[in-house]
Amino acid sequence: MTKILLLHGPNLNLLGAREPEIYGAVTLDEINRRLTAFAEARGVELRTAQSNSEGALIDALQQAMVWADGVVFNPGAYTHTSVALRDAIAGSGLRVVEVHLSNVHARESFRAKSLLAPVCAGQISGFGWRSYRLGLEALLGEFEE
Amino acid sequence: MTKILLLHGPNLNLLGAREPEIYGAVTLDEINRRLTAFAEARGVELRTAQSNSEGALIDALQQAMVWADGVVFNPGAYTHTSVALRDAIAGSGLRVVEVHLSNVHARESFRAKSLLAPVCAGQISGFGWRSYRLGLEALLGEFEE
Amino acid sequence: MTKILLLHGPNLNLLGAREPEIYGAVTLDEINRRLTAFAEARGVELRTAQSNSEGALIDALQQAMVWADGVVFNPGAYTHTSVALRDAIAGSGLRVVEVHLSNVHARESFRAKSLLAPVCAGQISGFGWRSYRLGLEALLGEFEE
Amino acid sequence: MTKILLLHGPNLNLLGAREPEIYGAVTLDEINRRLTAFAEARGVELRTAQSNSEGALIDALQQAMVWADGVVFNPGAYTHTSVALRDAIAGSGLRVVEVHLSNVHARESFRAKSLLAPVCAGQISGFGWRSYRLGLEALLGEFEE
Amino acid sequence: MTKILLLHGPNLNLLGAREPEIYGAVTLDEINRRLTAFAEARGVELRTAQSNSEGALIDALQQAMVWADGVVFNPGAYTHTSVALRDAIAGSGLRVVEVHLSNVHARESFRAKSLLAPVCAGQISGFGWRSYRLGLEALLGEFEE
Amino acid sequence: MTKILLLHGPNLNLLGAREPEIYGAVTLDEINRRLTAFAEARGVELRTAQSNSEGALIDALQQAMVWADGVVFNPGAYTHTSVALRDAIAGSGLRVVEVHLSNVHARESFRAKSLLAPVCAGQISGFGWRSYRLGLEALLGEFEE
Amino acid sequence: MTKILLLHGPNLNLLGAREPEIYGAVTLDEINRRLTAFAEARGVELRTAQSNSEGALIDALQQAMVWADGVVFNPGAYTHTSVALRDAIAGSGLRVVEVHLSNVHARESFRAKSLLAPVCAGQISGFGWRSYRLGLEALLGEFEE
Amino acid sequence: MTKILLLHGPNLNLLGAREPEIYGAVTLDEINRRLTAFAEARGVELRTAQSNSEGALIDALQQAMVWADGVVFNPGAYTHTSVALRDAIAGSGLRVVEVHLSNVHARESFRAKSLLAPVCAGQISGFGWRSYRLGLEALLGEFEE
Amino acid sequence: MTKILLLHGPNLNLLGAREPEIYGAVTLDEINRRLTAFAEARGVELRTAQSNSEGALIDALQQAMVWADGVVFNPGAYTHTSVALRDAIAGSGLRVVEVHLSNVHARESFRAKSLLAPVCAGQISGFGWRSYRLGLEALLGEFEE
Amino acid sequence: MTKILLLHGPNLNLLGAREPEIYGAVTLDEINRRLTAFAEARGVELRTAQSNSEGALIDALQQAMVWADGVVFNPGAYTHTSVALRDAIAGSGLRVVEVHLSNVHARESFRAKSLLAPVCAGQISGFGWRSYRLGLEALLGEFEE
Amino acid sequence: MTKILLLHGPNLNLLGAREPEIYGAVTLDEINRRLTAFAEARGVELRTAQSNSEGALIDALQQAMVWADGVVFNPGAYTHTSVALRDAIAGSGLRVVEVHLSNVHARESFRAKSLLAPVCAGQISGFGWRSYRLGLEALLGEFEE
Amino acid sequence: MTKILLLHGPNLNLLGAREPEIYGAVTLDEINRRLTAFAEARGVELRTAQSNSEGALIDALQQAMVWADGVVFNPGAYTHTSVALRDAIAGSGLRVVEVHLSNVHARESFRAKSLLAPVCAGQISGFGWRSYRLGLEALLGEFEE
Repeated sequence: MTKILLLHGPNLNLLGAREPEIYGAVTLDEINRRLTAFAEARGVELRTAQSNSEGALIDALQQAMVWADGVVFNPGAYTHTSVALRDAIAGSGLRVVEVHLSNVHARESFRAKSLLAPVCAGQISGFGWRSYRLGLEALLGEFEE
Repeated sequence: MTKILLLHGPNLNLLGAREPEIYGAVTLDEINRRLTAFAEARGVELRTAQSNSEGALIDALQQAMVWADGVVFNPGAYTHTSVALRDAIAGSGLRVVEVHLSNVHARESFRAKSLLAPVCAGQISGFGWRSYRLGLEALLGEFEE
Repeated sequence: MTKILLLHGPNLNLLGAREPEIYGAVTLDEINRRLTAFAEARGVELRTAQSNSEGALIDALQQAMVWADGVVFNPGAYTHTSVALRDAIAGSGLRVVEVHLSNVHARESFRAKSLLAPVCAGQISGFGWRSYRLGLEALLGEFEE
Repeated sequence: MTKILLLHGPNLNLLGAREPEIYGAVTLDEINRRLTAFAEARGVELRTAQSNSEGALIDALQQAMVWADGVVFNPGAYTHTSVALRDAIAGSGLRVVEVHLSNVHARESFRAKSLLAPVCAGQISGFGWRSYRLGLEALLGEFEE
Repeated sequence: MTKILLLHGPNLNLLGAREPEIYGAVTLDEINRRLTAFAEARGVELRTAQSNSEGALIDALQQAMVWADGVVFNPGAYTHTSVALRDAIAGSGLRVVEVHLSNVHARESFRAKSLLAPVCAGQISGFGWRSYRLGLEALLGEFEE
Repeated sequence: MTKILLLHGPNLNLLGAREPEIYGAVTLDEINRRLTAFAEARGVELRTAQSNSEGALIDALQQAMVWADGVVFNPGAYTHTSVALRDAIAGSGLRVVEVHLSNVHARESFRAKSLLAPVCAGQISGFGWRSYRLGLEALLGEFEE
Repeated sequence: MTKILLLHGPNLNLLGAREPEIYGAVTLDEINRRLTAFAEARGVELRTAQSNSEGALIDALQQAMVWADGVVFNPGAYTHTSVALRDAIAGSGLRVVEVHLSNVHARESFRAKSLLAPVCAGQISGFGWRSYRLGLEALLGEFEE
Repeated sequence: MTKILLLHGPNLNLLGAREPEIYGAVTLDEINRRLTAFAEARGVELRTAQSNSEGALIDALQQAMVWADGVVFNPGAYTHTSVALRDAIAGSGLRVVEVHLSNVHARESFRAKSLLAPVCAGQISGFGWRSYRLGLEALLGEFEE
Repeated sequence: MTKILLLHGPNLNLLGAREPEIYGAVTLDEINRRLTAFAEARGVELRTAQSNSEGALIDALQQAMVWADGVVFNPGAYTHTSVALRDAIAGSGLRVVEVHLSNVHARESFRAKSLLAPVCAGQISGFGWRSYRLGLEALLGEFEE
Repeated sequence: MTKILLLHGPNLNLLGAREPEIYGAVTLDEINRRLTAFAEARGVELRTAQSNSEGALIDALQQAMVWADGVVFNPGAYTHTSVALRDAIAGSGLRVVEVHLSNVHARESFRAKSLLAPVCAGQISGFGWRSYRLGLEALLGEFEE
Repeated sequence: MTKILLLHGPNLNLLGAREPEIYGAVTLDEINRRLTAFAEARGVELRTAQSNSEGALIDALQQAMVWADGVVFNPGAYTHTSVALRDAIAGSGLRVVEVHLSNVHARESFRAKSLLAPVCAGQISGFGWRSYRLGLEALLGEFEE
Repeated sequence: MTKILLLHGPNLNLLGAREPEIYGAVTLDEINRRLTAFAEARGVELRTAQSNSEGALIDALQQAMVWADGVVFNPGAYTHTSVALRDAIAGSGLRVVEVHLSNVHARESFRAKSLLAPVCAGQISGFGWRSYRLGLEALLGEFEE
């Protein structure tokens, strides 16, 4: 059975409460629920995790090496500053899809640059909570090849 | 009935022949065929176009203003150099999703910068021909809201 | 009889429809009509052209070498990206006045830089359709000297 | 009756004497005379002022707030270095047109960047003393709307 | 008795009239009055001055060398462009606190860089007219040590 | 009753021991004690926290959303590197005042740039432990309006 | 029989008329004639084409894939701006030699950077019409190996 | 008895498993064992620690202030992004030697820049697990002076 | 009789009092006295002036056009920021020698760049008050040719 | 009789031994032999020299001033770093053609910039030992004019 | 028997005399003596050389190709400017360890960038004369593998 | 008796022959003669040297340490590229005055930056052969203090 980690970075635990004009009104729990249902319908096991700590996200990626077939990862603001997460992704050997709720290319210029995308399979940004669903589909599509 | 333009930029007519290790072995005709089938199954009309000319792509976007509900657009190399296409997208009022076959963030640094993404709904890159399918899904998802 | 080319670049065919808060509500036809009347009143022949294609604009400038005494040119987005139009202007030997509807210096920073202005007689920006009329006057003023 | 300030920045008092191959042979007095006549013919009152001092130019702009309807301003070299004049223009609420005798975009690269243009209505450069007349016309055109 | 110069740079004489959404509705006279009262209550003599001229501000700082114990200075736009004021502060040997009404770090990027702060005791920005009061307190606090 | 979080970032737990020529000889406990007394005298409740971990600081800001009216925050070195803290501040809706013991504008150039200040109410730097007291006053002043 | 495409970019149709102090007095027809003679003498078939349009040049390169053994290409101003031509060259699998009439390294700094040279076999610049002949020789030399 | 902290940063717990072509096949346990043996042979006590968290590494450095005579530190990816670790090293007063398994100067350009090296005694990079041994020798050599 | 203007920029009136470790202990009056004596001994008339105001320095240069044969100019901090003084020098047609007391190339990096030197005959920096004497000699040497 | 200097810069004495996948397998002696034969067949005298020392190459260029009609110069790595060789070429008045074995535009970015090309007649790069022959032809072609 | 070249770049012949606060008081002869003793104790032959000339250092590296198994190289100031030495190292096929007496990362910013390190096995900097001994150990350690 | 080295860098042996419009028509021998006479008249011994080699110039500076009281140095093009000469000057402890024939600040932008001036006593540029005489005077003036 295919197993996927759905990993959320800093401040995403506040989704729904925080700046809804940018991030939408759906909560993180609701996103996890929708994605879990979507995964189950495809016979895929989904585990979810969130942390505000760069180190804890690295830990989660390392632990996923032993059980997960891939990762859908919204690294939040660490997208733009974390070489350590980049190394964790590259070193894990896991297939990771980077997703963003908002269109990071249309915001402050420092958000256009991703340190992680070069070591991910691909990047999806701008479609609200649907970015996650598209990311999961993209990941499953990769396994078909 | 929802109508979508599937627009391809320069050099994409050579897909399948050109650098398959980067762009995959699927031809543009095959991609158009698969996307058309996918659209039809969802009751969506898809029209396709390709041009190597920046001006012709602007023309296509302007003409889509009178009939299309949205655009899935792979602008190829014009992604990184065309302010005119940016103006065409912004001026058209159309919802445009930017897609790329390869992960543009993992290639030469000049490919990481998109002049178009800031005026698109979002960007999807790195999943081969599936990037188009995800882009179409993303676009249709937008209309649900 | 003095003969002038009034040349419009990409996306200007949509004037009036496109982003009126930036470009105003006057259509390109209306601008051409007003400028033609203004020219006729001064005994000047005005010919107008528009294209979304960089190559077609170069063609128009080259053809103007054999009949026109000067050019009022709104190069639109190619202002900021086209070395080829710069070479066409410099190589044509024509006196060209660069005009812009909006104040390009007050918008995105990439619009403040003109590749063409260094080889034009001068630049006028920010006065809506009147920028064209001022450009024509400026051009005619040059001939007085 | 419409009232306009015609304001000249540093070194412009030397016009006619200084580098005529760049700035032309017309003196500042002559320019003021021509513009005054042009204004009178349109029923517009024109007052003129010049200073080499950044502070005195700011004073002039502040005083114009209580009597002038607009300003035609050639800020000379302060165009490129004065954030204080930028604040004075923005804070005055006056409609200001920036004009230059020479084509600033065709000279040293540090002259292509205007700190003032983003807070002006528009910019006209390259037409010798006629740049002032075009600037005045542009300003009056604005009032027509 | 401690003596302090309260020095205001360009355009600050217009406070209350100019862009109140950025700078607040309090006039410079009112600020001077409030600060004078605040100073008197602490047994401190306050003298105030304002100029739009960089040179006059340098003069004021030089003259303060013979009578003042410190300076609360809002250099306005000269903050970002004046090496001469920087030299005047460094050369005066006076303890100077740089204050700003608005949060200069949250505005145009050229306002985030202060040429003066490196030679001041510290910088306070973003608290409207209270920035002055905090600056005065900070200065008096320094003398306690 | 007004409630304020006094939050300290990395390495500030060593205050007094670490580089006293830059940061002064007062310990963090002493600062907390002085500020608490200052707050109590004004009828304000102050809670204090410190962490070396970026994630823990984000947690603290998120938790403050439910009880605090504002935050006085010395982010230490994270000032210059943390987009995640920026997002946490912006997303919290809390009024935050950024304070620094030393004059960050007078040290290494990478310390002059604050990623957080654009989303804070203002910034105070350079006055040793008094920066905190001034920050608290500034914050309380904001509530008066 | 070896077959070569001699391809000319924008504004080169004006050779001889345009800025002879930079580009020389030989016309494009004359260059084509000389090169054809030179090729025939070596038993090589030469076909020539010119366009001002980036898209048409891409088309020409794509069509050459089915008949040509190599290309001598003077891309004119597109040398410095066209990622799409770069992709067309790289994707065509053709051996392309980039040639320039003038010494591009001795002109404006933006002409020193070639986006195309990294995907060409080599670059020759500065020898007037002889740059083409040297380019053809270089190309034929490559086939000897 | 001399006491040394051997500190490892993010992702180094995966050594041996992760990208052996870059980092070698030796595990972190094995490195710790070899270094401990090497230290004991010289009458030096070695304690080891590893964390993926920036904050935990700062904690470790702070705690070492009370017991350690020096630190051999491989900061991994935090080398390039952490001002907080820089402050922790500078503030600790400890002699720290920065070591890297791979030659960081021969990899991506962002790895050539160390934020930490300016506050360390020195840097050793490129010799696999031997970099640690050389770092320990270098540290002990410093104490001889 | 040769006539020379000895012109001093901002803050130089404080010489002797201000930062003697950088600028030496000689006062401006003393420098003027020494230079006047030196000039008289060579049959040269020297007039001296100083101002803290950019505008007043421009005035002084313009007035020198009618009586002076050359200028020895220490522009102080305006060296690095004033395009207006550059224009005044270039426009005056006067031979100007730029002098500095300190070695501007050995101080902050923003002092290494002179906006004025490109339009001066030459630059002398680093020799204290003797820089003026060398500058005067250099100027007189120019007249010998 | 036409006389040409064939000058080789640093490390080129190792040709054939050093990195043949970049520079080819032909030795420098062999290149000199082939070029000498080629020159003799055209009635041209060729003298050859090589040095690893920048100073010695300058000497060789200076000595060529008295006997040579032109220079074919492969400056190797000094292409990118030597202002002194640039001055030597410009000062010699000799016609110099810069040649490179490899396509310098397709290698590390610091190799794309030539300090010498702006003062050479032209540049040829990318054709192995044939670059020398093309350079010699280009040089002889120049003399025909 | 293993043979190593110990190579010293410009100004290192003055060691002990020159700036001892940066480079220490040990002379180059003394370093050579210590390293020779260290090498002999390990059965390694060490030859030493020093030159102030870039060309002579290239010669030394080329000659070492025929007799040496590796090089310990302190390139001094050429570290930061010499592409030619980089090519010499890369072309020699020799294993080279770059060493520095001082911590180059803690000095002027132009010293942090090494053009040579990317083609060396590794870099050691900051440990005075011991940097050489560590470099030799590192080199010998490489041969063990 | 005071002893001075007059040191000339690359290409200066060609003075008089090379680009006289920039460097003047006086030969190096003539400059040496004039300076020697000037020195003798002041009871100063002058020795002169020139080399095109960076290494030989470093040698000359090192040898001057044992006999010279100061150096007048025209480093030519090495001014802008040589960190090794900078180290040689700084390490020699000699007082060095940097001189240039032409006004380096008015030429190509890469000539405005001197790597050597920060470690020299001062810089004189723009006065032809007189720059040397002024440099010698400046050096002697330093000894008076």
